Amino acid sequence: MTPVERRAAIERLLADHAWCIDQDRLEEWLDLFTEDAVYKIVPRENLEQGLPLTLFIAENKNMLRDRVTSLRKANIYNIHYDRHLISGIRVVEDGAAACAVEASFAVFHTDQEGGTRVFSVGAYRDRIVFVGDRPLFREKIVVVDTAAVLTLLSTPL
Amino acid sequence: MTPVERRAAIERLLADHAWCIDQDRLEEWLDLFTEDAVYKIVPRENLEQGLPLTLFIAENKNMLRDRVTSLRKANIYNIHYDRHLISGIRVVEDGAAACAVEASFAVFHTDQEGGTRVFSVGAYRDRIVFVGDRPLFREKIVVVDTAAVLTLLSTPL
Amino acid sequence: MTPVERRAAIERLLADHAWCIDQDRLEEWLDLFTEDAVYKIVPRENLEQGLPLTLFIAENKNMLRDRVTSLRKANIYNIHYDRHLISGIRVVEDGAAACAVEASFAVFHTDQEGGTRVFSVGAYRDRIVFVGDRPLFREKIVVVDTAAVLTLLSTPL
Repeated sequence: MTPVERRAAIERLLADHAWCIDQDRLEEWLDLFTEDAVYKIVPRENLEQGLPLTLFIAENKNMLRDRVTSLRKANIYNIHYDRHLISGIRVVEDGAAACAVEASFAVFHTDQEGGTRVFSVGAYRDRIVFVGDRPLFREKIVVVDTAAVLTLLSTPL
Repeated sequence: MTPVERRAAIERLLADHAWCIDQDRLEEWLDLFTEDAVYKIVPRENLEQGLPLTLFIAENKNMLRDRVTSLRKANIYNIHYDRHLISGIRVVEDGAAACAVEASFAVFHTDQEGGTRVFSVGAYRDRIVFVGDRPLFREKIVVVDTAAVLTLLSTPL
Repeated sequence: MTPVERRAAIERLLADHAWCIDQDRLEEWLDLFTEDAVYKIVPRENLEQGLPLTLFIAENKNMLRDRVTSLRKANIYNIHYDRHLISGIRVVEDGAAACAVEASFAVFHTDQEGGTRVFSVGAYRDRIVFVGDRPLFREKIVVVDTAAVLTLLSTPL
């Protein structure tokens, strides 16, 4: 792959991530991760102060699968639409084995009455590996600026 | 055109769409559509349930022209600024004749007192044709998450 | 550089601009400007009516340096997180010496209680020069839709 093709594939991976969540295709969303993938959500304040608190952690893809299963059962009580906007995708390290990528996001929630609000803003700090021509998340750290309470009922960010 | 050039042209078409509306250049916005273009706004809930309700439909470019003419007369009563952010552009079908493209958007409105609010979030589902090297919308379906009331006075999404 | 490489470099400059501000790396943010760079913030209403009012102007990089120094002293009173989303980057003029670039932005602020709000939306109108392969802002005009009061304490947009 040329650098331009790699870059396009990374942008597409992030777009697919957003699209799968927003379209409630969480099972397809899982396909974007390696089996040993780590996914976690950390408050920005803690990260900057070097504190280890995480709001959510899945240490491998099986834990993410469990999460999706829980959401399928729980979300009859939390019906809303998600909408992600992602911007400023920066490939900060482009190694043969893996890429480090940063980007900013905003997630909007729309409730059943049709009201839309900013749910969370923050940054992704991803480690992406290529399996053949296909990029996958090996690590996705979601750093949230917003102190929203993330519960069992929350869809992924 | 190479795939990279096609992709860049599609991104530019979406950026021009947003820019024309935000800068109140609605007559130039019309130039982004084919004569037989269909433009419609549908609530996400209805689309997902297979219900045919649309909030607005123009079945060809002449109907869009009428819309712009109406807006020019009506909007002395609805003065606001629009601002679009578009993200996650995904070419989901890239045929010789046409491309199917999906993207997410957020539109902010700023009123005359300078207050800004999220007006609508949702997705575009576009069918884009190339006339020579120039991409044009043949179909633009705006799927809105937000149940904002879209009136005669609303600028396009 | 090929047109594709130039385009990628311009996108990266805008992403770096956002990232430096959002990560509070204002000293690195200065590195994105030429020594003779002009940076100003103007209300959209005034620009469209041809009125000369500006909310902030730095007529060269030394004035921007002073601004950053002031912010370092002042912002013990205004602790918040910034988050930029930038979209619709359009290269409207691509000369040998300089490029004219337009883009839309939204900036979110998160306060110490973790509440996030839309702080400002608007457009960038930039003039970018290449020093070797490296793009730099020679002029950055921030046109704000939102009438937020920009004070001594505000971080850059």
